[in-house]
Amino acid sequence: MTDTITRRAGGRAARREARSNPLAANLRPVHPGQEGGTYHPLSKAQMDRIHHAVLDALEQIGLADAPPSGVAYLTGAGAILGSDGRIRFPRALIEDTIAKANREITLFGRDPRHDMLLQGNRVHYGTAGAAVHVVEVNTRTYRESTVQDLHDAARIADQLDNIHFVQRPMVCRDIVDNREMDLNTLYACCAGTTKHVGTSFTEPGFVADAIEMLHLIAGGEDKWRERPFVSNSNCFVVPPMKFATESCLVMEECIRLGMPVLLLSAGQAGATAPAPIAGAIVQATAECLAGLVYVNAVKPGFPAIFGTWPFVSDLRTGAMSGGSGEQALLTAGCAQMHKYYGLPGGAAAGIADAKLPDMQAGWEQATSNVMAGLSGLNMVYEAAGMHASLLGFCLESLILGDDLIGQALRCTRGIEVDEDTLSLEVIRATCIGGPGHYLGAEQTLGRMQTDYLYPCIANRSSPKEWDELGKPDLIAKATEKKLKILSERAAARFDPVTDAAIRERFKIHLPA
Amino acid sequence: MTDTITRRAGGRAARREARSNPLAANLRPVHPGQEGGTYHPLSKAQMDRIHHAVLDALEQIGLADAPPSGVAYLTGAGAILGSDGRIRFPRALIEDTIAKANREITLFGRDPRHDMLLQGNRVHYGTAGAAVHVVEVNTRTYRESTVQDLHDAARIADQLDNIHFVQRPMVCRDIVDNREMDLNTLYACCAGTTKHVGTSFTEPGFVADAIEMLHLIAGGEDKWRERPFVSNSNCFVVPPMKFATESCLVMEECIRLGMPVLLLSAGQAGATAPAPIAGAIVQATAECLAGLVYVNAVKPGFPAIFGTWPFVSDLRTGAMSGGSGEQALLTAGCAQMHKYYGLPGGAAAGIADAKLPDMQAGWEQATSNVMAGLSGLNMVYEAAGMHASLLGFCLESLILGDDLIGQALRCTRGIEVDEDTLSLEVIRATCIGGPGHYLGAEQTLGRMQTDYLYPCIANRSSPKEWDELGKPDLIAKATEKKLKILSERAAARFDPVTDAAIRERFKIHLPA
Repeated sequence: MTDTITRRAGGRAARREARSNPLAANLRPVHPGQEGGTYHPLSKAQMDRIHHAVLDALEQIGLADAPPSGVAYLTGAGAILGSDGRIRFPRALIEDTIAKANREITLFGRDPRHDMLLQGNRVHYGTAGAAVHVVEVNTRTYRESTVQDLHDAARIADQLDNIHFVQRPMVCRDIVDNREMDLNTLYACCAGTTKHVGTSFTEPGFVADAIEMLHLIAGGEDKWRERPFVSNSNCFVVPPMKFATESCLVMEECIRLGMPVLLLSAGQAGATAPAPIAGAIVQATAECLAGLVYVNAVKPGFPAIFGTWPFVSDLRTGAMSGGSGEQALLTAGCAQMHKYYGLPGGAAAGIADAKLPDMQAGWEQATSNVMAGLSGLNMVYEAAGMHASLLGFCLESLILGDDLIGQALRCTRGIEVDEDTLSLEVIRATCIGGPGHYLGAEQTLGRMQTDYLYPCIANRSSPKEWDELGKPDLIAKATEKKLKILSERAAARFDPVTDAAIRERFKIHLPA
Repeated sequence: MTDTITRRAGGRAARREARSNPLAANLRPVHPGQEGGTYHPLSKAQMDRIHHAVLDALEQIGLADAPPSGVAYLTGAGAILGSDGRIRFPRALIEDTIAKANREITLFGRDPRHDMLLQGNRVHYGTAGAAVHVVEVNTRTYRESTVQDLHDAARIADQLDNIHFVQRPMVCRDIVDNREMDLNTLYACCAGTTKHVGTSFTEPGFVADAIEMLHLIAGGEDKWRERPFVSNSNCFVVPPMKFATESCLVMEECIRLGMPVLLLSAGQAGATAPAPIAGAIVQATAECLAGLVYVNAVKPGFPAIFGTWPFVSDLRTGAMSGGSGEQALLTAGCAQMHKYYGLPGGAAAGIADAKLPDMQAGWEQATSNVMAGLSGLNMVYEAAGMHASLLGFCLESLILGDDLIGQALRCTRGIEVDEDTLSLEVIRATCIGGPGHYLGAEQTLGRMQTDYLYPCIANRSSPKEWDELGKPDLIAKATEKKLKILSERAAARFDPVTDAAIRERFKIHLPA
């Protein structure tokens, strides 16, 4: 009977009804860890050639500037210190390291709901970067970013389904002292979200303090070590092919204190990396493999994310262009090298060169985010909110990024082919003696929430409906959502006792 | 000596110099017919299953409503007319047709420079559609589209490197008589561009007149037949699985008069096609194969583009959602079925649901255009300018689409891996005794125009430069370019004698 009524009404009432029932998380159309891997920018033969060039680069060119401790770790593992001060890596050492390294890493959230398993083609999107400006959309201005902006970004990201982790996207420019800045960065992120947090440290001497704060937040060292919910974004190299001496010491300290490490090689093709895309991939891969040897020499099997983050220059000016097609290819190519080695990895995508969240920003962010997802990149860093080639972070753009990334995730999920989706019987029943359309079909109703993703802010109304709604402006809608989220109490906030303990031990800039 | 100076100056002067030399067309970073095919949304096993479901659908369900002439052609070829009026297709007939059909088609431009070879993974982007509104960005309004708007769109597209063909994107709402509308549509497009034009006809009786106009433009029937520069976008089916009787007669007429046909199946998943993506692909593929049998029965080997254009419904409302991730997957999946059969094909991508060229439009257009390119779709229709799920066309968006599609083409081109791009020697020379950066390297200078694409309007300046430039607005820049193009004499305009002859024979609405 219901079926009959439904069909008569073209199915609209039934669709409304179906939609009002919330779906179990495992049935939602997209989820963190969606499996990609349908896009292969590099053939097997091309990857073999890249791999051999990587081995040659490590064996023949090597890396300069390792700290004395690093020299000891690396030569202890089998690397060779040359008379020119460069550390060179025999092929066998690299091959052994790849064979022994982790094939999967779990990055924990403070809330276990947000744990991320990095493995195979599982894709996660999140924020990252070191923007020094916040983009104010209403006045179209760039101003220096503050610890409050960072906290707001974390709080907003916490509420967005398709932002899976929160690596620090902005620098707290209002905190002059570097130690205070690093500690307040950590506080501002963790107090804003229970998703996995990524952060960086200016000096090795700041790490222990940060870990002390994390022990307080976790409720003890054992709890922290069991589920470390913060990782260290570590620029351990200064491309081309030089270790970043201080950052290596930060890395050693993080390993000692149980904080997973993102081995981040951020060369810039045409400036600090070769201009051809393949060459930039070779160099980034070589640098990250050197880092992987380092980490495993300090502590075998320690969780390290293979962070090939080569960027792109606009070769007319030498300036960065993270929004380019070349950038999208570079990131996707790196993702494929991660699979080649079977190593959990991350890279940068979703960067806009556009100064504002305009149409340019949309196509720039979508191109690289979609290609990163399709290529099966485990960690897509800088995926939302990033403008002006990483110089500015925009909260409205972060919110719109949730819709944009949702779409990328839907594309990443791909096409299921099975008896039901092939739909032969549905086509038959519809065409022969049936209604001649699929609006009210049981299959249509059943698929409407599991197969189809609906954006939160993006507008799909007809011109007429849009006009009747007062022509809603996309950015104004994002601002509205931003203000709503920020007007609510942050769900991730620490309990008062913990917060007081942190504030007693450290100088916290955010008001209690 | 120059090299030494260059290196000292970090290469900026040399890069400027290199950039000032225009590149030969064959060295440009992207070009029409760029080869895609690195993205495979469907596995071989999945395509086999789809193919078998397609054969079952054609053999068991078949298509209704063929015109009497079509019934004669199809049964003559081996199809079977059932007592229910449906035409069914034995598997062998389908397999034979696929085996015999064209593996490549050349779509001619009026200017041979714009010829397009449809084959393999070669990708071309262009306009298409039947929008009934023009989007006025400055007043944020939708108004009915006119023949002048259509002509303007063609003139603009003619000047954009990354728009490779001009299928009619808008309906001339200011022309009431259908015959006059069809003829003026053709005139407005052809007078605006020397690129390949696509158009449609309301009734079979209008085709001969249109061909007469094309003879005048071409300079004779022989010249037209030798290089037909207009194709017929033909909605030969009314999904699900019914021939569009009148359109089939239009098709027969086009075949008779030498106009290539786009076999366009435009179902809508969840409404006129099954809701699952795989099912919508099955139905569209089945319908287009039926069309291919039809064309080849009328004239073996006649050029017909395999036009699987399934769209997507927002299942909450039943309305179309061309900007969704599901749409991008649907289009890319269809493109892969074209390769499976080795048939030159086209599908729809680049549609925005957004009403204006805002950030939403950017991500919607980029997602499907990039995936279409990566999948190697021969003809990407509706790739630029389309808003409100095909209801509105925007000239500013068309202009911005040139940059957006340029980026998609750059991604489509992919990553070259060879001795030079691997860059081992450049890395060595840079790191060991070299400058420690690649800015002035010969390789960098050599690659800056062949490997890197620079957008025309998209802004890559730093926040500081952007501020100094007066914070240029993306849309305002597009409007500026629009007005500039439209203020110039249309390069594609017919010579005065031809134009006078056309105007004497037909009632042309555009002023001479």
